[in-house]
Parts: sequence; C-alpha cells; structure tokens
Amino acid sequence: MSAPIIAVVGGGQLARMMQEAANALGIHLRVLVESTEASTAQVVPDSPVGQADDEKAVEELVTGAQVLTFEHEHVPNAFLETLPVPVRPAPAALVYAQNKLRMRQVMDKIGAPNPQWAEVASRGELADFASRVGLPLILKTPTGGYDGKGVLKIQDLAEAQDWLDRLEDGQTLLAEEAVPFDKELAVLLARRPSGEVRCWPVVQTIQENGVCSVVLAPAPDLSDQIDQQARELGERIATELDVTGVLAVEMFAVGDGADTKLYVNELAMRPHNSGHWTIEGSITSQFEQHLRAVLDLPLGDTAPVSDGAAMVNLLGSELEEPREAYPRALAEVPEAKVHYYGKGVRPGRKLGHVTVVGADASECARKARRVVDILQGKEK
Amino acid sequence: MSAPIIAVVGGGQLARMMQEAANALGIHLRVLVESTEASTAQVVPDSPVGQADDEKAVEELVTGAQVLTFEHEHVPNAFLETLPVPVRPAPAALVYAQNKLRMRQVMDKIGAPNPQWAEVASRGELADFASRVGLPLILKTPTGGYDGKGVLKIQDLAEAQDWLDRLEDGQTLLAEEAVPFDKELAVLLARRPSGEVRCWPVVQTIQENGVCSVVLAPAPDLSDQIDQQARELGERIATELDVTGVLAVEMFAVGDGADTKLYVNELAMRPHNSGHWTIEGSITSQFEQHLRAVLDLPLGDTAPVSDGAAMVNLLGSELEEPREAYPRALAEVPEAKVHYYGKGVRPGRKLGHVTVVGADASECARKARRVVDILQGKEK
Repeated sequence: MSAPIIAVVGGGQLARMMQEAANALGIHLRVLVESTEASTAQVVPDSPVGQADDEKAVEELVTGAQVLTFEHEHVPNAFLETLPVPVRPAPAALVYAQNKLRMRQVMDKIGAPNPQWAEVASRGELADFASRVGLPLILKTPTGGYDGKGVLKIQDLAEAQDWLDRLEDGQTLLAEEAVPFDKELAVLLARRPSGEVRCWPVVQTIQENGVCSVVLAPAPDLSDQIDQQARELGERIATELDVTGVLAVEMFAVGDGADTKLYVNELAMRPHNSGHWTIEGSITSQFEQHLRAVLDLPLGDTAPVSDGAAMVNLLGSELEEPREAYPRALAEVPEAKVHYYGKGVRPGRKLGHVTVVGADASECARKARRVVDILQGKEK
Repeated sequence: MSAPIIAVVGGGQLARMMQEAANALGIHLRVLVESTEASTAQVVPDSPVGQADDEKAVEELVTGAQVLTFEHEHVPNAFLETLPVPVRPAPAALVYAQNKLRMRQVMDKIGAPNPQWAEVASRGELADFASRVGLPLILKTPTGGYDGKGVLKIQDLAEAQDWLDRLEDGQTLLAEEAVPFDKELAVLLARRPSGEVRCWPVVQTIQENGVCSVVLAPAPDLSDQIDQQARELGERIATELDVTGVLAVEMFAVGDGADTKLYVNELAMRPHNSGHWTIEGSITSQFEQHLRAVLDLPLGDTAPVSDGAAMVNLLGSELEEPREAYPRALAEVPEAKVHYYGKGVRPGRKLGHVTVVGADASECARKARRVVDILQGKEK
C-alpha cells in the first residue's frame, strides 16, 4: 500500500471537499490546518496544525509528499520556491491570484479584457483616475482580500480617505472602474503540468454583499459565441500564466447576446465556490480534477450530467445548529444535496451549500434556496 | 458545533465510502476498525481499533452516538439488544441477513418466492432433498459466508461429505435447489424507522466465482412488469422484516419477458456492492441514504442521473500498486470514476471499483472494464 500523498495548505471547506475526492481515488491528503477545530481537521486523519506562513510546518508537511497545493492563496511565495517538492500552482503563477495589481498587469500584457484600472497611493492619483473613468469606482487592497473583504465601492473620493491614510510606505491600492455589468460569469477549468486543459460549462454567479450566493450552471441565456469566448479567455489565461490545478476566472458581462462584452474580474487558483455544483452536476468534480491536475494525472470528463444545476450558499443562520433543521429541509426537497462544513455559526459565514441538478438551472436554484432558507431558520 | 454521531462496526470499504457521504452532510462517523491499516482507518479520524465481537469496544463506540449501524453482518446479536442507543437495522431484522436458514424460513412465511430448500445435518437428509430437487444443488453454511465463501455447488452427494463431517453438534446446513437462472438481479432500497421506503432502479449483477463482478443499471431488457414486481418484493421484505437502513435483495430471474419468475437469493442489510453505481449514477447514493435512514432523516431522491450506468469491480491485480496505472487508465476513459479502497493487493481481493455513467449500461460496462483491465495489469 503506498497512496500518493498530496500536501495541502489550509483547513477550510475546500480542503474538506478535496478529501471526499481523495478518499475515492485512494489518494492520501495531508492538510495543514489552522486548528484542531478546522473544517478539514474534522475529517482528515493526517491534519497537522500550523499556519500557512510557518516555514517549518510547511517543510514538515511536504516531507514524503508528491506535491504541495493550496486551498487559499495566502501563502509566502518566496519560501515556496525553496521546497523540495513540486508546488502547484507554482509560485510564479500563484502570484497573480495573490496580488490583484500583478494580475491586472499580466491581463493587460496577454491582451485579456480588463476594466480600466490604476495603481494609486494618494488622493491626487485617485482623483486623476476618477477624472478618467468617473464615479463610482472600486478600490481594492492588492493582497489578502476574499469574499468581499478588501474591496470598497466609493461614490466620492472622500470615502477613500480612510484607506489611503492607512497605507504604509510603499503600499498602494488598486483602483478599478465600476463596470456596469449585466451579469457575472465564471469560467472554471483545470490544467495539468503537461498542458492538458479541461473546462466546465460557463456559469452565472450571483453575489450578495460581495459574497457568492447563487451559481447557475450553465449560465442561462448565454449565446454560444460568448460561451465560447469566455472559455477561450479562461484557457488562454491558464496557459499564458502556466497555471496548474483548478483556475476560476470571474468575469463581468456587459450587454446582451452576441454583443456581450467580457471583462476579467478576479482569478482564483484552487477549487472555487463557483464550481461546487460540479460535485453532483458534472462527471468530474472540481475537487477530483484539482487532485488529478496537481499530480499531473489525465484530467476527467467535465461534461454536465444534466441540463441544469444550481448551487446556493448557506451564509449564516438564525439557528444555533442548522443540522437540526435537516428533517424539514430534506423532506421538502428530496433531490437536494446538502454540504455542511462543520463550522460554527456566525452571521454571514459560509457554513455550507446546497446543490440541485435537474432540467432547468433556475428551477434548481429555487429548490436549493428553499433548503437554504430552512437551514437558516427563515422558514419555521 | 455538534455533529450527529453515527457509530459503525466494520472498517472495510463500505464504511470508507460512508465517510464520503458523512463528510458532505456534516455527520461525524465513528468507526470500529479491525486494525489501523483498515481501509476506513485511513480516512476516518475517529476510528478506534477493535473487533466486532468485543463488547467493551462496541460499548465505547456507541458512547455519545445517536445510532449504531454496520458495514457487515458479523456481529453478536444478543449483545446488541443491550446497548443504550438505537441499533439500525435492529437485531430482530439483522438476524435474517446473518442466518440464511432464518432468512429462508421468513421468506416462506411472508410468501416471498424462495428456491426449494431444506435444513440438513446428515447424508440421509441431503439425499432426501436431492431426490426431490435433483442435482446439482447448493449447500450453504447458514452463517458467516460472504462473497462466495460458505457456498458449495455439488454435482453429487459425495462432494458434500467433507462439509457434513465438519458439522458440530446442533449445526446444520442449508441446502437449496440450483435455480437455472437466466440472470441475476438486485433490488436496492432504503427504509427509515418511520416507514418511508425509497427504491433504486433494479440492476443486473454478473458474478465471477461467486463474487460480484459487474453491475448494469438499470437491468437491461427487463419488462416494466418484472421491474415493478422486483421492487414490490424488495419493499415487502423491508417492511415485513422491519429493516432500517439500506437493504439489498439479490434475486434469480428465470425466463423471459412477462413470464420471468423471480426467486430471492440473498439479503444484505447495509450498503451493498450492487449499489456502488449509485455514488455517481443516482441523485442519492446508497451510502448517503444509509446514513439518512439510520438517523431517521427523510430519504433522498433515488432517480438515476443518466439512462445507463455500470460498475465493474477491481478484483485483484497483477500490479503491486494498481494506482501506478492511473496515468494510462484515466487517459483512456476520461469519464471513468475510479474508487480505490487502499487495501493491499491479494489475488481476487476487492481492491476497488470503477463506475461509468452514460447513455447505455452495456457500453458503460465496456468502458469501466477497460479501466479495470489496465489497473489489473492486463493491458500493458
């Protein structure tokens, strides 16, 4: 018995869901978890406790492993280059998921469609940018943001003052035009070191307060042409940036039909919330595909298993223990697939998600939402 | 955070696959494993080592658990009745999966179609039975058999002598007519304590040397009438025997079309090899359904996700490490879902299985077989 060992940094729900795929394939996951209470620590026997920037902990983590990968981007990149095992995605790619300024630069370089953007460090620079693109506009901290954190939409320049005042020497902000998008799309794909790329159907994501709330697969009312264009854009980014593992490209779509214009919004180089539907909705889930990709194994079929699918996040709950609502929730929607991450309830926290597959993505979303409402205590 | 705790006896691949479903639902599995090397021990953090007949180990296992269940039937029934938590299936039902004589008796009692059978302890009793049903016939040890072990097909009475000689005082054998079946079917369903029953599509199973080798879902060329009859038979057995959790009813089918006659062959009260295809092939897998059923939660939708599905077992391998053949196997059949149980290679041992879903079960079987051949080292 000698299972391949994949070392993973980060013990949240993404590593937890990787474990389900690893079990099936007979792959050993070793996960660096933030605490013994972490979502992943509850389900992975080999889950040492340590922080992502603890170099000794990461060195121990990769001992005997085939490869190191991640469930989040908050890792010290220079150190990763010193490790004796392959790191996938490699630091040279990962930096574009870690640093939004570097991402905007490289998107411009490869000719991927960006919103207008500028690097700003002062009120004057921000005013210059605003005079070009108008208000409102978006400010982002280049690193460390997720789920709407590190993003600020400002209606006038004064609203930026607090962020500007807090910049330390050498720090800058990313300013972006507020793209008047009609919808948000996400392209999810995986790429292995040998170059094979497989893409899932393009999905529509619906955010609430900057956090992904609903995913419709495939994206409704998308012309074949724009679908094709979005996939090609995703594949080009993966190839040009030499990404390995799963890549999610979040995009803004402006306009309708064949006139739709796409803009790159964010990149994530790991399994992504916009791809949770693939667990039930596709022949190969993003979690299995990520493991296959980082081991440089052939990628799995990404065809959907049904005409539609939807995922709704369980963001916070009025119930102390949402699982106590299973009897009602599961009875109402027998086709719902509930994923509960084992985390403590806090307002707005991603506690789990619900997927429904069926004939129509919007109808699937309605059913999944019903289950989420019950688990949130909104339906007595 | 307070996950429901399900205690499970047995650390083989069935408990391992339960864990994948438990992860998703946020259910805590605590599994009594035979050794730290057991298939389940590799993937379940809370997996104390102990034997199924170690009363102290089982008592500790159920402490704080909502319910006790099993991945095999080899448990001491009288002791289970003394435990302070619900045992599902209950000992009063489980006995019919443990003891084939008791099973035949109760099938007769509820009017389920049995092959002709007799309890025999001597050459004379066996000769009497053979004079009624002819030869060949089947001898079975009433308890302890699995995967073809404890089953002997005899062409003449002398072949039974060894088994008869080894009977101790009070022990008997089950003799059955050798049903000249055209195919073998299996009905899989789940039932919860409150009575809800949900049945998966009837499948055809193909055995090699008494071990399940291939499962085709749904069973090809089955008339609606026989499909209906098989499901009703399964549901009647579940209800009459008060089974909770997953029940598999293996059947012989004799004849064609609407004239097909069904006979009950074996019962299993747990997730069963004939239902592994449900992991990918059905909205709700047998492993998730078993957990839901033993917790008395509403059962999930058992509809198939495609027109066809097939599962092929990986029984032994010429390779020391079948996982080293993943690059070739996964490249040839990108839609194959490989399950590897993490057990050491031994001739004929169930090391894993491969499922393919698609438009046609037979074509799916061909693809899954191809992957199994590669993992067995038969295709260089």
